[in-house]
Amino acid sequence: MFETIAIVGATGAVGRIIRQLLEEREFPYRNIRFLASKRSAGTKITFKGEEHVVEEMTPEIFSGIDLAIGSTPDETAKEFCPWAVERGCVVVDESGYWRMDPNVPLVVPEVNPEALENHRGLISSPNCSTTQMVVAMKPLHEFGRIRRVVVSTYQATSGAGVKGQEDLKAGARAFLAGEDYQYQAFKHPIAFNLVPQIGSPKYQGYTSEEMKMVHETHKIFGDDTIRVCPTCIRVPVDNCHSESILVETEKKITVAQARELFAATPGIKVVDDLDSGKYPMPAQCDGDDAVFVGRIREDLSSDNGLAFWCVSDNLRKGAATNAVQIAELLVKSQAAV
Amino acid sequence: MFETIAIVGATGAVGRIIRQLLEEREFPYRNIRFLASKRSAGTKITFKGEEHVVEEMTPEIFSGIDLAIGSTPDETAKEFCPWAVERGCVVVDESGYWRMDPNVPLVVPEVNPEALENHRGLISSPNCSTTQMVVAMKPLHEFGRIRRVVVSTYQATSGAGVKGQEDLKAGARAFLAGEDYQYQAFKHPIAFNLVPQIGSPKYQGYTSEEMKMVHETHKIFGDDTIRVCPTCIRVPVDNCHSESILVETEKKITVAQARELFAATPGIKVVDDLDSGKYPMPAQCDGDDAVFVGRIREDLSSDNGLAFWCVSDNLRKGAATNAVQIAELLVKSQAAV
Repeated sequence: MFETIAIVGATGAVGRIIRQLLEEREFPYRNIRFLASKRSAGTKITFKGEEHVVEEMTPEIFSGIDLAIGSTPDETAKEFCPWAVERGCVVVDESGYWRMDPNVPLVVPEVNPEALENHRGLISSPNCSTTQMVVAMKPLHEFGRIRRVVVSTYQATSGAGVKGQEDLKAGARAFLAGEDYQYQAFKHPIAFNLVPQIGSPKYQGYTSEEMKMVHETHKIFGDDTIRVCPTCIRVPVDNCHSESILVETEKKITVAQARELFAATPGIKVVDDLDSGKYPMPAQCDGDDAVFVGRIREDLSSDNGLAFWCVSDNLRKGAATNAVQIAELLVKSQAAV
Repeated sequence: MFETIAIVGATGAVGRIIRQLLEEREFPYRNIRFLASKRSAGTKITFKGEEHVVEEMTPEIFSGIDLAIGSTPDETAKEFCPWAVERGCVVVDESGYWRMDPNVPLVVPEVNPEALENHRGLISSPNCSTTQMVVAMKPLHEFGRIRRVVVSTYQATSGAGVKGQEDLKAGARAFLAGEDYQYQAFKHPIAFNLVPQIGSPKYQGYTSEEMKMVHETHKIFGDDTIRVCPTCIRVPVDNCHSESILVETEKKITVAQARELFAATPGIKVVDDLDSGKYPMPAQCDGDDAVFVGRIREDLSSDNGLAFWCVSDNLRKGAATNAVQIAELLVKSQAAV
């Protein structure tokens, strides 16, 4: 058990869910502290029935903290993670800043828990669109060795934070009333529209969000020969990312085998009955920690391909849940020592 | 010129646009008539400033019509097309019913105009999701021979007709007000949600909409060795279908070549400048007859692959415009005789 734990970025969209999860999952600790930027410091939040005051994050504050779970913008994580690690505080970081650092393990507990061993005080949790995909890939990869992935995403506005969610609702209200609306989080209108750009231009016409799906997948599986072609699209959905995924494997996987493999994997829920109109939909996966798969079928365009549809709550498994699961593994490995 | 022309299904979502297009494009005729089911017969519509009464479609009525452009449900087309053809009326049919009939050419004027030759009085126009895809495929196929297509669609509610569009708006209004709404056109809520089923279960876990994209593509290119893996998803967008498309070709096509090939193709508009945040989005393509392509990039997962994003107004190029273009070709071929 860690004596004193902290949530860094406690007032954000993901921070709020980390708080919920620590309650729900009875995460062990003696003391808990809530940190945020200067702007949010002083905010009062209720946790397990008690009122707490959010503290400003400073280098010194981490001297009194043993484990920090961080969900902050990249620039904040760049600063606070070294402050914490230097003072002996273990950090599970949700931001994008440290993920590709060779000294930092990038962990999805269902996929590569072994990467946690010999960590140097800082562990990264992957990007939301990567996490749900690698959870679904894992049993297929173990069985048939994945050589190639073609993925098109349908990403919710909550991926752009609370402001993204507010934008969608306010934009939709304005549109329906025939009024103009000035978007805050998006550079193009998202209500009743699609925006085929998430992140900034990064590599040969691919965006930063798309390249995260390539590089993080390689790092998590420890195999950069898996070829990944991602297309990331923002859709007018409040929460839960969806992905149309096609994998090609060395060894053929039938639909029946895939369904069994998925069903036997902790963290995956199979909802796959087209005849009865049953498949995962974002509005129904909201608030769930699982990665949902459905529409499982053999690829009509290759001999060893499998196509499926994958939905997961990007604020939960895509962010908060994965970070808390990493923290739980750290607690377990302490107990084992 | 055809002496007397008719629009069958004149009061529907696509019928309304066919009317607009005949005006806009100054389609030649001496007399025009508007037909619909018994339910809509008697409706008054204004066309070129004159009031017309919609007539009920009967077998006999086609004796006085030389060219009919039909946009009706499949079951209606099954009935009326033989009535018309038997009476010497040429039919351009938008429905799905006749498309795969070996005696009926399936035509996209930019792709296979030659299929019109020797028609037997009935010509089909493809499904909306197929049409925009094959227009984009055509220049790539001619240059590099496409062997495989992986496509994930983002299809607007207008594909389910006027009721689909009303459902989205009413459903969104109710959701924002915290009220329930009973959907008419969709079996699952579509506002702020995604539904990974369009059409009915058809073949090995694929839906009828998905299999249309396979079979119609084969018929239009006259090549059933092109392997197609489609995933069709309904999204909360009013109008314009979007598609994330990956093609693999025999001969490699670079991004620069693809951009040139697309730009040189009538009917295609290239909007492709990620650095400036420019790419096709459904809200901006609404009301345009073109097929828009953007986000053109080399496939990171194969050696001869090309990925791009394709948006088109499904009521226009996906339906009305394509049918009117076929009718225009028929007028031209008459003139040539």
